[in-house]
Amino acid sequence: MQQLSLNIQTLNIPPREFDQRIERLLAVVQEQGLGGVALFDNYYILYFSGFAFVPTERPVAFVLSAHGERALFVPRLELEHARVQTGFARVDHYREYPDKPHPMEVLSETLRDMGVTGSGAGSIGADNDGYPPILGYRGPTLSALTGATVIRLNAVIDDMLMIKSAAEIALIRESVTWGNLAHRLLQRYTRTGETETDVSSRASIEATRTMLDALGSLYQAQSPFGDGASAGYRGQIGRNAAIPHSLAGNITFREGDVLVTGANAPMWGYNSELERTMVIGTPSARQRELFDHMLRVQETALAALRPGAECADVDRAVRAYYEEHDLTPYWKHHSGHAIGLRYHEGPFLDVGDHTTIQPGMVFTVEPGLYAPDLGGFRHSDTVLVTDDGIETLTYYPRDLDSLTING
Amino acid sequence: MQQLSLNIQTLNIPPREFDQRIERLLAVVQEQGLGGVALFDNYYILYFSGFAFVPTERPVAFVLSAHGERALFVPRLELEHARVQTGFARVDHYREYPDKPHPMEVLSETLRDMGVTGSGAGSIGADNDGYPPILGYRGPTLSALTGATVIRLNAVIDDMLMIKSAAEIALIRESVTWGNLAHRLLQRYTRTGETETDVSSRASIEATRTMLDALGSLYQAQSPFGDGASAGYRGQIGRNAAIPHSLAGNITFREGDVLVTGANAPMWGYNSELERTMVIGTPSARQRELFDHMLRVQETALAALRPGAECADVDRAVRAYYEEHDLTPYWKHHSGHAIGLRYHEGPFLDVGDHTTIQPGMVFTVEPGLYAPDLGGFRHSDTVLVTDDGIETLTYYPRDLDSLTING
Repeated sequence: MQQLSLNIQTLNIPPREFDQRIERLLAVVQEQGLGGVALFDNYYILYFSGFAFVPTERPVAFVLSAHGERALFVPRLELEHARVQTGFARVDHYREYPDKPHPMEVLSETLRDMGVTGSGAGSIGADNDGYPPILGYRGPTLSALTGATVIRLNAVIDDMLMIKSAAEIALIRESVTWGNLAHRLLQRYTRTGETETDVSSRASIEATRTMLDALGSLYQAQSPFGDGASAGYRGQIGRNAAIPHSLAGNITFREGDVLVTGANAPMWGYNSELERTMVIGTPSARQRELFDHMLRVQETALAALRPGAECADVDRAVRAYYEEHDLTPYWKHHSGHAIGLRYHEGPFLDVGDHTTIQPGMVFTVEPGLYAPDLGGFRHSDTVLVTDDGIETLTYYPRDLDSLTING
Repeated sequence: MQQLSLNIQTLNIPPREFDQRIERLLAVVQEQGLGGVALFDNYYILYFSGFAFVPTERPVAFVLSAHGERALFVPRLELEHARVQTGFARVDHYREYPDKPHPMEVLSETLRDMGVTGSGAGSIGADNDGYPPILGYRGPTLSALTGATVIRLNAVIDDMLMIKSAAEIALIRESVTWGNLAHRLLQRYTRTGETETDVSSRASIEATRTMLDALGSLYQAQSPFGDGASAGYRGQIGRNAAIPHSLAGNITFREGDVLVTGANAPMWGYNSELERTMVIGTPSARQRELFDHMLRVQETALAALRPGAECADVDRAVRAYYEEHDLTPYWKHHSGHAIGLRYHEGPFLDVGDHTTIQPGMVFTVEPGLYAPDLGGFRHSDTVLVTDDGIETLTYYPRDLDSLTING
């Protein structure tokens, strides 16, 4: 695999890479004898077309015919935006939802016109049998509308997204840099008496401003849920830290708190993940003990993560560590997940996932320990699988001394 | 309908209201002879259980049996969080995804144990035939797993969400207040040479800090995508403003820019919407003309919005205004949408929506005009339908003088 150093001139996915992605999808269409493909998922649409949008009740679709013609299908509202972002020769649109004709009827005309569906009872590849019921959307299924048999391509497409290209890896590397800055500021501003919301906002805005000043117009978030670097706690503070996906609140830091952080900076849609466990004030013996176990179990996962192994192998090694050290009561979740356009994606570092680990995969590695009334202990690093091992892309300090905050 | 003044002690949905919601759902179950209900949508789950979460590849479900037993079904990771948030006597969990047994197999045990599915070939109400393929999730359908016929309840549940209770309206009112503050700060800090990102971040963090200081521990966002007040432009600046749902970028304000804003503050999950068109520097004649049309077309919509009318009537009146004044080339979308736990929801102020407007509905009213190379012109107000008319909940100034920024 090519180790691309960051080319600062291209903080995006180049047009030829979209062509390659579409060629791979076209090979699937031809292998399976499909009339074509219609995709509704916003991440799949971004992957194949470059069009980033917030999914709403207004259907959007990417269409590919067996002849290789590509099109984007959008509401009138998104027409100019879609043309600029995709550069596609064909961007079809409907007037509005729930206006008549129903968007799915307009889509079925596009599909017929492109030869994806026809007079015979053919098959069409899709990620869902029609647009999903997002924000109250209602409509007919693709199969009912076209008479075609819908073949789900989710697994095939997920397999494509699984292996990152050099351009994708470069974007994830760049994401790591600015996530690291946000995290550094988060740690710097965190002290007793300050609140989670203030510290997180201050760190995020400063990191974002600096990133935008540094990258200028090259920066495009292309992410529906964030437009800059961010770092925060999501409520994982002190006793709350034992609830891994707690939502953020207005919590004031106290001496003795165990904190679990999170930082990211979407880069042309691509994400990285950096999480650290920090302690305010001198760590107690019990905090030190759990922190050390957390470090060692993460190292156990990193040691097991290599090309040719199974995802399950990594999680099995981690669970064995918990069992050997009587830590199973502190276990709550698997060891990590792939990351890319989606902040979680398959494969998963989980005993139930038998996918072979391959060069070009990017994983978070983040086994955690959760102690009621004390807190959570979890680092998450973003790791690239190389031809002969792994490269840890995140580089924020991992040791307790570096992560202890003077109250 | 009761006009509840804000009771500052209860910035949430009280337990008895969850009971009432569940009783209404139970009536549907009994009417349709279902064994029970399983819901996977995060907004539906929040509505019936009070559990707020970010949807991921790990399935979550709300379950209700025909006997009235309620349960939440979560991964191990969310167990404590779910117990605290719902107060449910029954919170079942699975270990992990994609660990074995598959979460849907564990759910099918819960369903059997609660008597929702049984030996006979019954029916089960659901919002989707199994957990949707979010972030790479894969799994069997509910019907394949249980042998039960799945009856989609989306329309019935959306109809319940459509009419807001006094408690829901109080939360939306409170949301309006803090959205208004964020918007005021946004306008104050916007000037030529500043960037969108800086101004938006500064206004949002200050409004959030003030809101948290004012509301203290009463404040709960309960929203997966925001934990405070916010105001910004989402890239709708100058020429970009003609692209209504443009994603945010690092744009510098210039004299002569037409700006379209947006502000909100999720309040125990409930949203409001405030949007304003602003101009930097002395408005040109053309800007003034389009701004005036925008104001008048919004007033046309507000005049048509009343209990007993159809949603389509409002949009028809709006479209008639465009046609009378030769403005159709500037049209891009319908006149508004309902709002509540979801920032868009049905019914829609759209010629295709024949829902009767009823007291307790809350709509955004936001017809817009979009001129290439000049910008977009759109105000959005959040409006409550009362017994005999409407009450506009948002109160930010609407006139051009108030919305002109000295460059």
